[in-house]
Parts: sequence; structure tokens; C-alpha cells
Amino acid sequence: MSYEWVSEIKWNADGLVTVVVQDWGSGKILMVAWANEEAILKSLSGGRACFWSRSRSKLWLKGESSGHYQLIKDVYLDCDGDSLVFTVEQIGGIACHTGRNSCFFKKLERDQWSISEKVIKNAEEIYGQNE
Amino acid sequence: MSYEWVSEIKWNADGLVTVVVQDWGSGKILMVAWANEEAILKSLSGGRACFWSRSRSKLWLKGESSGHYQLIKDVYLDCDGDSLVFTVEQIGGIACHTGRNSCFFKKLERDQWSISEKVIKNAEEIYGQNE
Repeated sequence: MSYEWVSEIKWNADGLVTVVVQDWGSGKILMVAWANEEAILKSLSGGRACFWSRSRSKLWLKGESSGHYQLIKDVYLDCDGDSLVFTVEQIGGIACHTGRNSCFFKKLERDQWSISEKVIKNAEEIYGQNE
Repeated sequence: MSYEWVSEIKWNADGLVTVVVQDWGSGKILMVAWANEEAILKSLSGGRACFWSRSRSKLWLKGESSGHYQLIKDVYLDCDGDSLVFTVEQIGGIACHTGRNSCFFKKLERDQWSISEKVIKNAEEIYGQNE
């Protein structure tokens, strides 16, 4: 496997790129995350989206605790090389830790953030009672 | 006009948030950019997407030199408040400075970035011969 394509990615000062995750079927934007080179290579070799958790400072295989993995369909790079799009099949239809399909569930309406998506599964059901 | 909704946005250390721009009709992800508070307020008050240009360190009304403005339809905030989605009507159908619909025109295929979109208008036509 050649990794020449990786060298075209422009990492920021922290060695990260922005990754936008889009549902392959609906076209919905599910979340935005960050990835370093290791996360990108793991994503591509394993077929499941892997990111860099800035809050926990470690690799984050999306779905490892929830089961809501993201199976990668296609990967796109933008013109200046510092953002990626993963189109994915979202296992369980839930990308957000709040149990919603998308993390972008707050919609601006009349100068207020209005909740525009229902919770599909609550956190207790997803992560168990102790989390 | 109340700006309380702005206070729910979590700016990074540089006072910026990530903005993903999505075509309102097709659902295509057109670009990823950054915005500060002034850019967000200008976007919402004027109805046309405005960002912060990190390379030029100034406000950037998308389309001011190309005419390819982005008319804002809806604005979404994610669960942790540090990323926004603008759904837009893309004037001219061209978001990318290369004259393509989307900035994400490089698709990973067999370990190579393959150009997945045609140029609709070349740069000379968009910006004039001197740019």
C-alpha cells in the first residue's frame, strides 16, 4: 500500500486535519472531528472512522464504546488540503453522544438554538448505566 | 435582535469556529472555513456567508471578488458548540476558487487523489485576467 496520498494532506500546527463526516445515504452532516496521520491511516486500513480526541489526547475509534461505528465509503480532500470529508455508513443511525443521528441538532430559529432532532436512544441505553 | 445564541458558540484559542458549508439543494459539502464572532454576525445580518480568512487575517465575504456569494438558508450548531453548518444557495454553482462546485473535488481512489469534479468556469473567467 502506498501512502503518497497522505503526504498531500496539510496538517495544522498540532498535526491535525479537520474531518467532516457525512452520511453516505442521506447526505446529512453527522459530525466534525479532528484526525492526525495515525488516525487517518487507521481509518483507511480498518474501514472504520478513527479520529484524534483533543480532549482525551488519544486515538479515538468512533463507536468503540457505543458500537456506533462509521464504515467509511469515500474520502475527499479539499483544494487546500487541510480538510477531509468521510462519507460513511453510520451504524445504529446515531453519530452523536446524545443519542441523535447528527451532532448538528441545534438549528438557529428566531435568534435561538432550537433542537431539531429527536433522541433515538438515550445515553444510558448506549453507554450503560455507569456512564 | 438578540445575540444570546452567539454566546453558546465555543470559540477556539484564536476566537474561531469551524464552519462547514453545505449546498441546500444537493446536500453536497461545498467547503470548510473558519469564522470569528464578527463574521458570524455579518453572515446572519447580511444573509451571505462571511468567514475569517486565516491566510489574509481579515473578514472574508465569500463571493466578494468572484460574485459567487453563498446565500444562507439555515445554520446549525453541534453538540459541543465548536462547529457550525451553513446550508446555502451557492450563487453560480461554484464554491471553489478553482471554478468547481465543491472544494472537495479530490477523491481517494486506489491510494491516489483523483479529480472527481469538472471545472465549471476557469479562474480567468471568474477573477479576470490579472488574477
